[in-house]
Amino acid sequence: MLEKRKPIPVGEAVKRIMFHEIHGQTEHVSINESYGRYLSEDLVATSDVPHFDRAPYDGFAVRTIDTIDAAQTNPVEFEVIDHIGAGMVTDKEVGAFQAVRIMTGAQMPIECDAVVMLELAKAFERDGKNYISIKRAYKPGDNVSYRGEDAKEGDILIKKGTKINPGIQAILATFGYAEVPVAKKPIVGLYATGTELLDVFDQLEPGKIRNSNSYMIAAQIERAGAKVHYFGQLPDEFDTCYEAVKNALINVDMLITTGGVSVGDYDYLPAIYEKLGAEVLFNKVAMRPGSVTTVAQLEGKLLFGLSGNPSACYVGFELFARPIIRKMLASEKPHLRKEKAILSVDFLKANPFTRFVRSALTVSEGRFVASPSGLDKSNIIMSLAGANSLMILPGGTRGFEAGSEVDILMLEDFDGSEWPW
Amino acid sequence: MLEKRKPIPVGEAVKRIMFHEIHGQTEHVSINESYGRYLSEDLVATSDVPHFDRAPYDGFAVRTIDTIDAAQTNPVEFEVIDHIGAGMVTDKEVGAFQAVRIMTGAQMPIECDAVVMLELAKAFERDGKNYISIKRAYKPGDNVSYRGEDAKEGDILIKKGTKINPGIQAILATFGYAEVPVAKKPIVGLYATGTELLDVFDQLEPGKIRNSNSYMIAAQIERAGAKVHYFGQLPDEFDTCYEAVKNALINVDMLITTGGVSVGDYDYLPAIYEKLGAEVLFNKVAMRPGSVTTVAQLEGKLLFGLSGNPSACYVGFELFARPIIRKMLASEKPHLRKEKAILSVDFLKANPFTRFVRSALTVSEGRFVASPSGLDKSNIIMSLAGANSLMILPGGTRGFEAGSEVDILMLEDFDGSEWPW
Repeated sequence: MLEKRKPIPVGEAVKRIMFHEIHGQTEHVSINESYGRYLSEDLVATSDVPHFDRAPYDGFAVRTIDTIDAAQTNPVEFEVIDHIGAGMVTDKEVGAFQAVRIMTGAQMPIECDAVVMLELAKAFERDGKNYISIKRAYKPGDNVSYRGEDAKEGDILIKKGTKINPGIQAILATFGYAEVPVAKKPIVGLYATGTELLDVFDQLEPGKIRNSNSYMIAAQIERAGAKVHYFGQLPDEFDTCYEAVKNALINVDMLITTGGVSVGDYDYLPAIYEKLGAEVLFNKVAMRPGSVTTVAQLEGKLLFGLSGNPSACYVGFELFARPIIRKMLASEKPHLRKEKAILSVDFLKANPFTRFVRSALTVSEGRFVASPSGLDKSNIIMSLAGANSLMILPGGTRGFEAGSEVDILMLEDFDGSEWPW
Repeated sequence: MLEKRKPIPVGEAVKRIMFHEIHGQTEHVSINESYGRYLSEDLVATSDVPHFDRAPYDGFAVRTIDTIDAAQTNPVEFEVIDHIGAGMVTDKEVGAFQAVRIMTGAQMPIECDAVVMLELAKAFERDGKNYISIKRAYKPGDNVSYRGEDAKEGDILIKKGTKINPGIQAILATFGYAEVPVAKKPIVGLYATGTELLDVFDQLEPGKIRNSNSYMIAAQIERAGAKVHYFGQLPDEFDTCYEAVKNALINVDMLITTGGVSVGDYDYLPAIYEKLGAEVLFNKVAMRPGSVTTVAQLEGKLLFGLSGNPSACYVGFELFARPIIRKMLASEKPHLRKEKAILSVDFLKANPFTRFVRSALTVSEGRFVASPSGLDKSNIIMSLAGANSLMILPGGTRGFEAGSEVDILMLEDFDGSEWPW
C-alpha cells in the first residue's frame, strides 16, 4: 500500500484548517485566576477614572482666584482649615484665602481648583492656627487630575483576544471586574501511537524508546493556551486505535495523534480517518520536517495526525494546531508571529521544499539574529530545547549564506500574526 | 517629619538587594506539572540516545560487505528474511545476501551496518520468498543512527535555572525523568496599604478608588515565577500595619507592601521597619518613577516597600523584587533582559534622574523599535497594559529624539540578563 500523495503548500494547508468556523466559548473566572488567560470580550471602562477630581501630589488645595496677586515679592497667606488623606473627603467649606492640606490621591474639596505642591508652600503657625504662604499665582487645573482624565465610562480599553498581563490585571481591578470574561480553554485530546513507545517511568528495553512526543506536545498545547487531555499510548494495531480515536473524539474539542502517518506498512491513521468517515483536509505538505502531517475533520472537530518524528511533530503542531487553538481563544492574530532576522551561519543545504529550521533567535545591537539550534541530525532533541523560533527557508533554493535576511516564526511570543504565509 | 533622604543609583540599590545570599530550594514535581517551572539542577543524560543502533528511515537493513559489487549495471539481490517495525527486534540472524525490512526507528539487526532506503530498493517475489535488488554499494553506517549519537550518558544537557519549555519536556521524558527537580516557588507576601482603597468587588465611593496594585503585582509575582500570598488591604494606621507586617513575615520568603513610603504625614512604612529592627538597605533611588521605594531586610528576609503609585509600584517590582525571585529560581541571569532599540518618537522631557518609560517594543525589518506606551500622565493605567518593556532614559539629559538608540528592559522575556546596570 505505497500510496501516492500530493503535497500542498503550507499556506494552503493552514487555510483548509482555518476555514472551519470553530468558535471558542466564554467562561467567567475570578480576577485572582485571570492572569495569563485570554479576554473573550472587549474590556470596557465601567466608570470614569479617576471618578472624582483628585490631587496627584501632596500639597494644599486652594481656590486659584485667591492666588492671583501672589508673587516672589508678594507672598499671600492661606489658613489651613483641614487635613485630608487619600480616601478622605473634607466636610468643610473652603472660603477665601483658605486651604486644605491634601495628600496624593485625595479628592479635591469642591471649592478648590488647584494644588500648591508641598515644597512650594511655606507652612507656619499663628495664634494656634495653621497657615501657608505662597509666592506665585496658580491657574485653574494646576496639579489637579480631573474626573475621567484616564478613562471615560464606556471606553473600550482592551480588545478581546488579548492575553491578560499584569497591567491588564490592574485595569480589571480598577473597573471592578471581580469576575473576568475569558475564553474557555479548548480541550485538546492527545494520543501517542507506536509499539516502540515506553512510558517515562519505564526502564529502557532493546528496540524501544520512551515516549517524549506526548510530553512535548502537552507543553505546546499549554503554551498555546489550551488544556490537554492525555489519553495515553496506543500500540500499532488498527482496531485498537480506531476504537480509541472514535471514543476520544466525544470528550474533546480536537484530537491530536502522533505517529502512524507515514506512508508505510504500519501507518494507519489515514485508514482510521477513512473508516470514521472523516474528511481528510490534506495528507501531505510541501515542507520539511512534517511533510506527512495529515489533518481531517469529523462533524466539525479537527483531527491532527502528526508525525511520530519529534521535530516534525513539533513543527506540525505549531503551524497547524496552534492557530485554531488561538482562534478559539478569540485571537485575531492566531498564527505564529513572523519577523525578519539575520542568518548567523551558512546554511547551504539545498532543498526542494520549504524548510522550517529550529532556531535560537537572539538580539545583537537591536537586530534579530537567527542561528539554527540543530544543524545536523545528531542533536534533534537538543535543538528542540534550544529553539525559540523556526526559520523559514523557502524551497527551490541552493542554500543561504551567513548574513542573509530570513523570515522567522517566534515560538514564545504572545502577539502572533494575522497571516504569515 | 519631612525627613531628608539620600537617593542612590539604581545599580547600587539592586546590588544591596542581591548581596543577600538567599537561596532557593528544590522540590520534585511530576513531569506532567513541570512545564514552565525552572530546573533546579543540571539536566543530565541518564542513558545514551539512541540507546541502540537504529534505522532513521524506512528501508532494508543489510550487511555492506554484500553490497560491494552492486552497481547500475549490476543489481545485487538480497532475500528479505524478516520484517520489523519500530519497537521490535529481529530474532533472526542475517547472513550473506540477506536483508531485513526495517521501519523508521527500529533497532538494527546486529549483523547489519547500513540501511537501503525503501525507494532505492526494488522489491519482488520469487518462489514464495521476498527479495530486493539494489544498484549501488553502501558504506558501513550509511543510514544508521548509532547508539549515543544524540546524547551520551552523563552529558549535561540543560543548565539549571532554565525555564522548562516543550523541547525540554521532550528531553525529560526521553531520559525517564518522571519526577523533575525544579526550584520551589518562593512565597511572596503582599499587603496593599491605604485608607483610600476599595476592593475589586466594592462599589465606588467618593474619594476612594479600587485597589489595583495588588492584582497587578500578584500577576507580576506569578510572571517572575513565584507564588503570591495575598494578605489583603490595610488602613493607614501605624499599629495595625506594624502587627500585620510582623505577622506576615513569619509565613513568607519575602514581603511586598504597596503605599505608605512617600515622605509625608501618612507614610509610615519606614517607621515600621525601624520598630521591627529591620536594616533599611535604601529608601530613595535616583530614578523616576519609583524614587521613594524602600527596601529593608530582617533576619535574611527582604521587605519591599513599593510606592502606591501604580507605575512606580510596577517598575519597583521589576527592578528590585524580580531579580531576587529569579535568583531563588536558580537563574544565573536574574535581571530583566537588556537590549538596544530605536526610539520611535521624540521624547524631549528633560530629567535629572534616570527615567524608566513604559514602552511597547515592536520589531520593524528585524530591528527593535521602542514606543512609549504612555507619554503623559493621562493614561497611566492604559500604558501599563500596553507595556512589554521599560525604556531606560539616563538622567542628566535634555531629552531624546526619534531615531536615537536607547536601552530597553524586556518584561515578557524568560532569558534575563546577568547584570544590566
